[in-house]
Amino acid sequence: MSDMADLAELRRVFDGHWGWVRDEAREALRRPEFGLAGTLGLDEHRQHVWEQLQQLAKVGHSRLGFPTRYGGAGDTGASVVSFEMLGYGDLSLMVKSGVQWGLFGGAIQALGTERHHAEYLPAVMSLELPGCFAMTETGHGSDVQHLLTTATYDPGTREFVVETPVEAARKDYIGGAARDARLAVVFAQLMTNTETHGVHAFLVPIRDDHGNPCSGVRIEDCGGKAGLTGVDNGRLWFDRVRIPRENLLDRYGQVAEDGTYSSPIENAGRRFFTMLGTLVRGRISVGGGAGSATQTALSIAIRYGEVRRQFSAPGQDREVVLLDYLAHQRALLPALAKTYALRFAQEGLVRTLDELQPGDGVPPHSVKKDADVEQRELEARAAGLKAIATWHASATIQACREACGGAGYLTENRLPQLRADTDVFTTFEGDNRVLLQLVAKGLLTGYRDEVGDLDAFGMARFYADQVWELVAERTSARNLLGRFGESDLRDREWQLALFEDREKHVLEGLAKRLRKAGEPGADPFAVFNDAQDHVLRLARVHVERILLEAFSAAVEGCEDDGVRALLDRVCSLFALSTIEADLAWFLGHGRLTPGRAKRVTGEVNALCQEVRPDALLLVDGFGIPEDWLDAPIAQGAEAARQAEALG
Amino acid sequence: MSDMADLAELRRVFDGHWGWVRDEAREALRRPEFGLAGTLGLDEHRQHVWEQLQQLAKVGHSRLGFPTRYGGAGDTGASVVSFEMLGYGDLSLMVKSGVQWGLFGGAIQALGTERHHAEYLPAVMSLELPGCFAMTETGHGSDVQHLLTTATYDPGTREFVVETPVEAARKDYIGGAARDARLAVVFAQLMTNTETHGVHAFLVPIRDDHGNPCSGVRIEDCGGKAGLTGVDNGRLWFDRVRIPRENLLDRYGQVAEDGTYSSPIENAGRRFFTMLGTLVRGRISVGGGAGSATQTALSIAIRYGEVRRQFSAPGQDREVVLLDYLAHQRALLPALAKTYALRFAQEGLVRTLDELQPGDGVPPHSVKKDADVEQRELEARAAGLKAIATWHASATIQACREACGGAGYLTENRLPQLRADTDVFTTFEGDNRVLLQLVAKGLLTGYRDEVGDLDAFGMARFYADQVWELVAERTSARNLLGRFGESDLRDREWQLALFEDREKHVLEGLAKRLRKAGEPGADPFAVFNDAQDHVLRLARVHVERILLEAFSAAVEGCEDDGVRALLDRVCSLFALSTIEADLAWFLGHGRLTPGRAKRVTGEVNALCQEVRPDALLLVDGFGIPEDWLDAPIAQGAEAARQAEALG
Repeated sequence: MSDMADLAELRRVFDGHWGWVRDEAREALRRPEFGLAGTLGLDEHRQHVWEQLQQLAKVGHSRLGFPTRYGGAGDTGASVVSFEMLGYGDLSLMVKSGVQWGLFGGAIQALGTERHHAEYLPAVMSLELPGCFAMTETGHGSDVQHLLTTATYDPGTREFVVETPVEAARKDYIGGAARDARLAVVFAQLMTNTETHGVHAFLVPIRDDHGNPCSGVRIEDCGGKAGLTGVDNGRLWFDRVRIPRENLLDRYGQVAEDGTYSSPIENAGRRFFTMLGTLVRGRISVGGGAGSATQTALSIAIRYGEVRRQFSAPGQDREVVLLDYLAHQRALLPALAKTYALRFAQEGLVRTLDELQPGDGVPPHSVKKDADVEQRELEARAAGLKAIATWHASATIQACREACGGAGYLTENRLPQLRADTDVFTTFEGDNRVLLQLVAKGLLTGYRDEVGDLDAFGMARFYADQVWELVAERTSARNLLGRFGESDLRDREWQLALFEDREKHVLEGLAKRLRKAGEPGADPFAVFNDAQDHVLRLARVHVERILLEAFSAAVEGCEDDGVRALLDRVCSLFALSTIEADLAWFLGHGRLTPGRAKRVTGEVNALCQEVRPDALLLVDGFGIPEDWLDAPIAQGAEAARQAEALG
Repeated sequence: MSDMADLAELRRVFDGHWGWVRDEAREALRRPEFGLAGTLGLDEHRQHVWEQLQQLAKVGHSRLGFPTRYGGAGDTGASVVSFEMLGYGDLSLMVKSGVQWGLFGGAIQALGTERHHAEYLPAVMSLELPGCFAMTETGHGSDVQHLLTTATYDPGTREFVVETPVEAARKDYIGGAARDARLAVVFAQLMTNTETHGVHAFLVPIRDDHGNPCSGVRIEDCGGKAGLTGVDNGRLWFDRVRIPRENLLDRYGQVAEDGTYSSPIENAGRRFFTMLGTLVRGRISVGGGAGSATQTALSIAIRYGEVRRQFSAPGQDREVVLLDYLAHQRALLPALAKTYALRFAQEGLVRTLDELQPGDGVPPHSVKKDADVEQRELEARAAGLKAIATWHASATIQACREACGGAGYLTENRLPQLRADTDVFTTFEGDNRVLLQLVAKGLLTGYRDEVGDLDAFGMARFYADQVWELVAERTSARNLLGRFGESDLRDREWQLALFEDREKHVLEGLAKRLRKAGEPGADPFAVFNDAQDHVLRLARVHVERILLEAFSAAVEGCEDDGVRALLDRVCSLFALSTIEADLAWFLGHGRLTPGRAKRVTGEVNALCQEVRPDALLLVDGFGIPEDWLDAPIAQGAEAARQAEALG
């Protein structure tokens, strides 16, 4: 199947609710000024991306997520999807735009109040005020609650004094800091009257109008990186830099002129995690951008796999097309299936974000009942999908590169750049392993609000005392698999029940393990540490369930029988290849007999061969404009060379 | 344990037979002229590497593998080990030296005869004659037996006419072609009197003394690549280029003045694979170089993991060192164990190569009984270890990069370059998946000589008719596991028997499947293709057995009890983490009960924690000079920053 109607329906399902944003971006971004940079040196690439960023501001990309009353479009979902679309082009531009409008502008929007919005947002959107987001420090990247930069209030001058107290407190890897940013959102421990109130965000000018560092600010270039050459990452040190009291982004914590501190959230830890939660959009965006890069790589490799031939089959004249080899299908098609799963899950995530943090209003979680739980669940889901999507990007782009052999190693075929640019996604906006631990924590605690108050010791006690009861209450007495027996491996209900059952079992097992932290003489750290592989497993199987549910719903939403049948096969390929990757668990826990386990592998092979004729249609479904697949091996050139090889 | 005596013994075991070469290289290569290039543009990097290559020729590196009668040292093993040592530095230099002295010089040595040796080898060694190895074509990389370039003998002028008949026949990705090479070893179909005799190697001048392309030769630069920027890969086209008859490297095929062809090996296919077999050193070298890069990455990441702290444990003042986290140990320590296993297997491989292809004599396989089988076994082992070693390099360097977070993404910390440079190792010198199929073919046929004669159709018939009998004969009636019962998981004999039993079972299963190709109406390609995942599995489990056997022998060879005990734990970590990665197979085939399978995971965790205190000692065992670990996070700088973070 591959007629135009099928393709249109496939794209409709793939594009989702913000299809219009995707279509507008496809139009706008094909203009020459957004073309790929090609191979440029560090300085040239930064300049090129900077100019493109200005063009992006002009075409209105920057306005999407900001409030209408300051000239924005007030559409949070659209802003995330628009960012995702940049992921088909130069990822340096995507990240650079994310820093300016997502992290920098987003922090002012989420953590500032009316007067900050009025004063800064218009210039942020227009790029008159380029900024950066200075959270990470050399010594603290994952554990940002304990970063060391200080902002001490001086009631005498009504200023904050921002200070880098030790070398490990320098701000590091800060996008925009090395070249373009004038203003930084600096995260620092807020001190008033010798009291610490935890991490808050402050607006600190770092460069004057001539681009020179402000007094007391030292700036260093991080220099070369594996990829994202067009992003100017830098380091910042503050030597008693004074900023007005008003430069505290004070939505969640205020300092009166006399230094009195007040906040709607009493506990400092909970306050900080509430602040972080408002910034969840960044994590969601990275997952989306990783998806776009993955789709580009798959499009290139699958197009090449359709024309590239090697070795003859017995009795055949022409050599065999690579994609006809099972090993080649195995390398690319399950990855293609998971890419669809991730796109559908991302769509759901963006919808939830759009509901909870609409671009034009106060997030409802401060008023709505249970909104805190919804918000925490969103954060956990964002964390989990970001981790799985970015690892999937790394692995899939790598598989695509290898599937294209020597051609895949050449810059002209884009895969090296895609691989290098996306590589950092697995550790920035949250290290993936740390993020998965957040997911597990949410699942263990049922996203309970009071957990946000607890320090490490409190969490250990919580695990020892309450986790088992909490988990047992939610998971008990459900035999999810009993009614299925030896059903068809493609039975979606069985697949869903199997994924749910696995998650439930892993959750229970982990809760039991953690309870040991409360036993007499137990070392809580050792108990938690020994269970760390189970923690990571729980998060992974949870995300896999979400992916399967999202994919399943998308299949249901198809309006064309042929497309539905195709996506149903792709969904089963995702489900069964995921089961196959964790076959030891299903066997070891009696969920699959050895005979049935073998059939899973056979069925994955069968599905690869069934999906294979539609592989090109499936990558066309991504809707990546031809200009963006700017790799000779993805275009006619290689096909022509191949065609003449054996006539 | 970590005193100097332990370290010395560890290094002795690690270094193996050519420890003196390693020590000499450690001395020579620490000179400033072999320092890392830092970030250079394409042209500068190529020039830098070119100058380093000249220095290498001066210090005698180039002489090691060539015959003493032409000024070489006649030590094949030393030449491979010396190449491996270059893998600790700039991998562009390693590859460039491999092209000049391994591929180009090696081809003249292995495929040429006396007069070629006398005429060319001295200038090859001294670098007066820079060359390249032009085998791969755009349309044929894996299936080089069917490449399309032709060399047609013209008896009138006693010349060969070298021709690129179609665009797909252009030579591609040829190291040295873009800038430096004067002479190319060109692989082409030899045609005499309208007869084809298969692929042979010819010496074709491609640049004159001024560096301009020779008449009829078109040269194009492949341009940017993911890594190896210092290597000038290019493309070559030949338009009726005439070369003297003497430029045929004629050891395996001669053309008389009148155009009469003769060869000691009648069958063209077998002849070509014999020729390829003499070039096996290249593949072995790549596996070794991949090992060195892996060791560098592990050294950097483990040193960083020892100083970097993040998050507090309950009730602890200082934050926890990364390497104390189980998840971090899991990411690095099994990879460290496998790196040791690969080094020991590489040592064995180089010894066998050195016996079969001594640098100073005619390879004995033309005289010795069974030498053909030994040679084929060496080729298969080289192919298998190259594939597993290079994938291990990619995965491990990637794990190291992620384990170092944002710091791991910075060029200054070397991991990006290591990752990008080694990436192509998985597809050059043989695509890994194709190589694993060679391994499986050898195992299935018992390295039988006559198989080399068969085309695709012949192989299909062979599989249908004879494979099952051949395999059954070798594997039947051995119950390898019966005597063990529920033995200790660290019992080396049990581990070895388990690996051997798995290989035997997979081999039998595959032979049974392939026999179906002979059933009436069967499509031999479909039968073989459907079994492709089993083919790859067979090769993988075979290599894993070789790794465990090599590691086990190295443990036995320890002369110090403490070091032996340590390496014994590391060996068990390798064995059990390998079993864990394939747990589904062991469970599904009844080799492990579910309870015992769970204990495997527990034991891997336990071993990670036991090995962890010696992690630094184990990377010190690699003996990488301090100057080569030129990454701030691997040196004092990061430790100092971390130290002051929380006092």
